Formats: sequence, structure tokens, C-alpha cells
Amino acid sequence: MPFRACLLAIGDEIVSGTTIDTNSSFVSQSLREVGVEVVAIFSVVDDEAAIARAVRRAFEEAELVVSTGGLGPTADDLTTACIARLAGCELTLHEPSLRAIEERFRNRGIEMTPNNRKQALLPEGSEVVPNPLGTAPGFICPVEVEGVTRYVASFPGVPREMMRMVEESLIPWVTARAGGARFASRIFSTFGLAESRLDELLVGVLEGEEGRLAFRAAFPRVQARITLSGGREDDLVSRLDAAEARVRERLGHHLYGVGDVGMEEVVGALLRERSLTLALAESCTGGLIGHRLTDVPGSSEYFRLGIIAYANEAKQQLLSVSRDTLETHGAVSVETAIEMARGARAAARSDLALATTGIAGPGGGTAEKPIGTVCIAIAWEGGDWSKRFDLGARDRDWIKQMTAQVGLDSLRRHLLGR
Amino acid sequence: MPFRACLLAIGDEIVSGTTIDTNSSFVSQSLREVGVEVVAIFSVVDDEAAIARAVRRAFEEAELVVSTGGLGPTADDLTTACIARLAGCELTLHEPSLRAIEERFRNRGIEMTPNNRKQALLPEGSEVVPNPLGTAPGFICPVEVEGVTRYVASFPGVPREMMRMVEESLIPWVTARAGGARFASRIFSTFGLAESRLDELLVGVLEGEEGRLAFRAAFPRVQARITLSGGREDDLVSRLDAAEARVRERLGHHLYGVGDVGMEEVVGALLRERSLTLALAESCTGGLIGHRLTDVPGSSEYFRLGIIAYANEAKQQLLSVSRDTLETHGAVSVETAIEMARGARAAARSDLALATTGIAGPGGGTAEKPIGTVCIAIAWEGGDWSKRFDLGARDRDWIKQMTAQVGLDSLRRHLLGR
Repeated sequence: MPFRACLLAIGDEIVSGTTIDTNSSFVSQSLREVGVEVVAIFSVVDDEAAIARAVRRAFEEAELVVSTGGLGPTADDLTTACIARLAGCELTLHEPSLRAIEERFRNRGIEMTPNNRKQALLPEGSEVVPNPLGTAPGFICPVEVEGVTRYVASFPGVPREMMRMVEESLIPWVTARAGGARFASRIFSTFGLAESRLDELLVGVLEGEEGRLAFRAAFPRVQARITLSGGREDDLVSRLDAAEARVRERLGHHLYGVGDVGMEEVVGALLRERSLTLALAESCTGGLIGHRLTDVPGSSEYFRLGIIAYANEAKQQLLSVSRDTLETHGAVSVETAIEMARGARAAARSDLALATTGIAGPGGGTAEKPIGTVCIAIAWEGGDWSKRFDLGARDRDWIKQMTAQVGLDSLRRHLLGR
Repeated sequence: MPFRACLLAIGDEIVSGTTIDTNSSFVSQSLREVGVEVVAIFSVVDDEAAIARAVRRAFEEAELVVSTGGLGPTADDLTTACIARLAGCELTLHEPSLRAIEERFRNRGIEMTPNNRKQALLPEGSEVVPNPLGTAPGFICPVEVEGVTRYVASFPGVPREMMRMVEESLIPWVTARAGGARFASRIFSTFGLAESRLDELLVGVLEGEEGRLAFRAAFPRVQARITLSGGREDDLVSRLDAAEARVRERLGHHLYGVGDVGMEEVVGALLRERSLTLALAESCTGGLIGHRLTDVPGSSEYFRLGIIAYANEAKQQLLSVSRDTLETHGAVSVETAIEMARGARAAARSDLALATTGIAGPGGGTAEKPIGTVCIAIAWEGGDWSKRFDLGARDRDWIKQMTAQVGLDSLRRHLLGR
């Protein structure tokens, strides 16, 4: 059966604008990937009457209501009681949830306050959704609406708890109701393709398969996700492997990782695998590449040194870029980029070095080198590579972000020989 | 009259989760600051029936509906037509808007397509809101609901266009309707205080004033905003100046800027004012401070060089940190931080240098130096300053962000002699 869903984000902090609702985007994308269409999102305050009105309106739009927030232990957490009233059922103590909450407090050596017991009171007849990362369990509660059974699925508002519970419990529940089928999915992270182009390249990749293809874009990441259903679990994995082989063939070097991974993680894993060390010479990216590389735990194993050579003097003194190169070709040139990369490699005594230099704007553009002109170079033992890119006159932040991504991608492709 | 408002975020990309709705948070906070309570947020797809249902439901909750999105030139932009139908009025061509759109295309040397003309068709009887940054004007349209006049205010979904239009047109409109009063507001950006502590410190700061105090927190920024109403415009400014003096006295060095500014902008402005140059030696922040400083246009005037000295060897070779210091005190120590700052200053021949070294985790913590231990140093001609901070065992990204903020704040206070 094709489901429609309406999402409910519950909490004063969302309606007042103090907190941006990122949960709904996650839930919506997750549901869409298994074929559920989300038709509306309602954000309401912590007020029982307001929540009840929102649930009723949501059932005018959809068969499934997914709420996030309002499951905490305090007096302003009203979701559970409100749903029970709408469903016409009692709240009953769910013993396994109470024990899980008690154990959680014991493990952390904190005394459990009586109001935490409230989180184990759940609407009778609900399917309980365990919360492996926090105290509040979720639940999926049937509600009769004009003689038809519909469902409210409620999750805590803490993003990492909610995300895990949706992935592990709601999505399988939805898939099971949509015909009892098993399902499995895989994400493909790409770079260098617009979402529309990615869509074109993957047309028909699931031909003959029972499954679906969905896309996500969150600059600078563009991802495709394949979800297959039907069959046994081992069968699903081998079918996913076959689909992955077809995706790889079609996307070539644009596919930089399988899973929801950042370019810095992929580059880091390649460096670690090969026991290579890296140095950076950053000009227009101003430290952003170093920042991204060091976001990865354990990056000190391969990342030795970064030099943010913003001034020409710094390029000369610390990176040994020659005055002649700077004067003849300018600070933004492939010649300067190559010397920066060589200089960083020599200073760090690393296996590899990556250099960026460019015009991020808003000032500094010329007819020959407009804003968005960027040069990237890589140096290694006995060789180097460099290229000029024209990224276009976008805003400063975008140019920095894109340069970092192009730089890391160039390094990845160099390491893979593509 | 006390207004209540309900927000409408219109667009398939929001409901499907492709785009996170940040507009509603901005509108909600802006309205709250002038005394309008936002009671709910509805996000709906680009479908005329869905938009109409949402507006009707919104009027059950509030007197004012503020919509964002769906004002574009294409067929799926349906907001204007839908609102006109609900208001029972015709769409008429707004000549000044058409001329503004035409001029915009002329200035950019692009041909205007006929569908752009659609953006100048607005509900008759509306107040037109000019869009200084884009083609689609907004409007505030009266709608009779059960014999009472209510209002729909519609803005484009592009955040920077919408923000400017809300600030310049909606907020004054709301304030005028709330009694015809003039108003003016000022933002105070703080660091080092929790929102609750900031609230405590500012209790009574507006005593005897006709105005309101509101708070915003977006890590690592915590802001207070004072909005005063009544009186002539010049009178409001002098009253705001008086309020600012009281705020300054109460917040002391915790107030780092007036307006919605980042610490990197404040530090950059101080360096530029005093014609001072800066170098960085970053270990645990991995380039983040350089990245933030270079987000500010014109930062090349004062930012000379950053050295991301992740490896101990790099600390020794490029920053001249002595092997003895590293062995005796460790890489995370005030002694190492001071030598890093001195070394960066010498390498860059800059007036000042800022250094960070710390344990961002998840590995590397010890009993004596647990995760979250951070040392910061500043070096200048003939002197230096350093301090150890225990930020607590938070996640890696948080520790990097907080260290960068503490480092920049330390530099700011040094420059101001506080």
C-alpha cells in the first residue's frame, strides 16, 4: 500500500525559531527512500490542545503521522499523553523501557529522578521503539480515524537518538507494512555532477529490480541511494553488490565513496591505507582544507603540516616560491601552485603535498583572472600535477568550499591513478 | 493589539527534506523581537489546494500568516494566485514592480523571459513589498475571515532576499499596526555566558523603558537584542545609546560586538584599525581559525601566515619549539603554546601571533590532560600571554569550534587590554 506521511515537529524552541528543525528533513528523506511520500510538515508548540489539533489536521493529509520531540521527562513534554488521549487508550508502564532507563542512570552513576519514570509510560497497544542512545523510548500507536486505523509514530527530538530509531525501527516497520518485504539500501557519494546529471546517468540502473533510486544534495555532497526490496537478506546484499557494480561503471571517478562519507574521510583512508603523509599549502582556502582533514579522528597519523600562506612573503619564505614566478605569473597561477606544493612537501618532509591559490573575492578579480579563478597543485616524489579551474563569480564562502572540495578530490584521484 | 502569527514555508524541496527550512526560524525570531507570538509553522508542497488548506488552518491559529517561497516565475510557483483567490480579489499588474524586474534584467544583460512578468502580478489591494535583491516582490494582502480582516504577508524563499524584506518592510508594518509606534533595535553579541546567565545579567536593564529584550543562541554566538518603541527616530537612537551604555557596564568583556557579528570580524576590524599583522600556529584547531579569519573580505590586509603544526616535528622545524619543551611539558602545554606563538610570529615577521594546542579527542586523553584540555598563547613584540583551559570531554568538532572561539576572544581582549 502506498503510504502518505505528515510530519509533526513538537517544541516551543522550534516554533520560536531558537532551534532550526533539521529532524523533519531527515525523516522526510528517509521515508521517501522507502516509497513513503511526505505531504506536509507541521511545527507546533508544547501545548496539548495545539498538538491534538495538529495531529487531527495531519490525518486529513496522510495515513501516517511521524512526530519528533516532546517525549522528555519534564512537565512541558506532552506528546505521549496527547497521543494516548487521541487514540482513546490508557498510558501503561512498559517494564522493559523502565528497566532500560534505570540501567542507563545506574551506568552513568546518576540518581534517577521520579519524573524519568514518566518516559516509560506509553500508550497501551503501541509498538514500543527502543532508544539505544537515550532515555525516552519511542512508540508507534494505532489511532482510529473515521473507522480506519491510522498510525502515529513518535520519537524524541534529540537528532542522533531520533535518527537511529527511525533507521532501525520506523523504516523497517514501514517497509514491512508495505508488503512484508525485506529491504536493504546503499548510498553513493558523488562529486562533480549536478543532481539532474546524476539522475540522467543512473536512468535504468535498476531495470528489472524491485527497488528505488533517490537523490540527496547537501553542498558539496550529491548522493544517490539505492533501496532494494524482496528476497532473503543475503540475496539482497548480492543484488546490491551487482547494482553497485553498475553504478560504478556509469559514474566512474565521480563516485568518491560508498556510504554517507565526506571527501576528507575518503582521502584520509587512502593515505592511511598506503602509509603516506600529507602537507598542505593553502592560500585562498585559508585553512579550510586543514580544518576538514582534522575533523577526521586519527588524522594526525597522516596529516603533518599545513601552511596558510596568505601573504606573498609567506609564499616566498616558508614555501620557497620564487619571486620570479610570483612576478611573472602572479600569485594565482599554476606555476605558483606547483611551487607552493613542492615547498610544503619539502618543509614537512611528507610524501605528498596539496596546494591551493585563487581569487575568492569580493575584490581582486581581473579580466584575465576573474573571481573564481583557482589553481590547484599536487607534488610527490619526482613529480607534480596542476590545473586551473574557473569556478565562476560566486560568493566568497562558496568559492572557498568548492576549492577545498576540488582540491581534496584531485588528491583522491591522484592516489587512485584516475 | 497583540498579534499572533502562523508561518507557512511553501515548497516541495522543504517537505521532501532536500532543503532545511531556515527561513521560518529567522521570521519567527524577528517577529518575536517586536512582540508578535508565532504559534505554529506549516510546511506544504507547491500545490494550490494544499496551500489554500494551510492558509485556512493558519487563520484558525493566528491573525497574521507569513509565507515564504512559491513566488518564482515558473509554473510551480503558486502562492500569489492562491492568496488572491482566498482573498477574493484579482491579480493586477504592479507597474513599479514590472519596471524594477525589467531594469534588473537589463543591468545584468540577460533577456527577460515572459514568465518573469508574472512576478509583477499581485493581489489587488495588497501592500507591495519591494525586493531590493531579487526579482520577486512580496506583498501584504488583507483577507476577510468570518467578517474579520486578517493578513497574509508573502515573501520569496531565497533567504537573503526574504531576510532583507522582512527586516525592512514586515517588521515596520507590524510595529506600525501594533499602535503606530516607531521602533528601533540593537543586537549585542556576547561570548562566555550561557543564555540563562545573560538573561540574569540583563534583568531590569530596560526598567522604565518601553521596549523588549530578546535572546538568540547559535553556538558559539549568544546574543541579546533590545527593541525600543515610541517617540521620534532621533529620540529612539539616543535611548538605544543609553541602553547600550547600561548593557556594556553589565556585560563587561563578555560583550564582544554590537550587531550580528562574528568574533573573526571584530578581531579583523581591531587589527586593521591598529595596522597590526597576525600569524597563527594551529594544532588542535587544524586550520579552523585561519578559515574563519579568511572568511572576512579584506583579511589579507592583516592576516599574513598560518602554520598548522599537527606533527611534533612540524612544531620543532617550522615553529622552533624546542625538543626539550616538548619532552618536558608535552605538546599540549602552555610552554609549547608560547613557543608556537613566538615561532609563528618570527616566521611571519608579524606584529602578533596566536597559538592553539589541545586534545580534541576521541583519542589522546590522559588523567592529567583529559580530552578538552586546551592551551592558548599570544606573542607580541617583547611579551606573551598564555592560559590552559579545560573545556570538558565534548565531541571533537565542538572542542575545535570552542577552541577557535576562545582563541579569537583572547586575542580580542589582548588588543583591548582587558
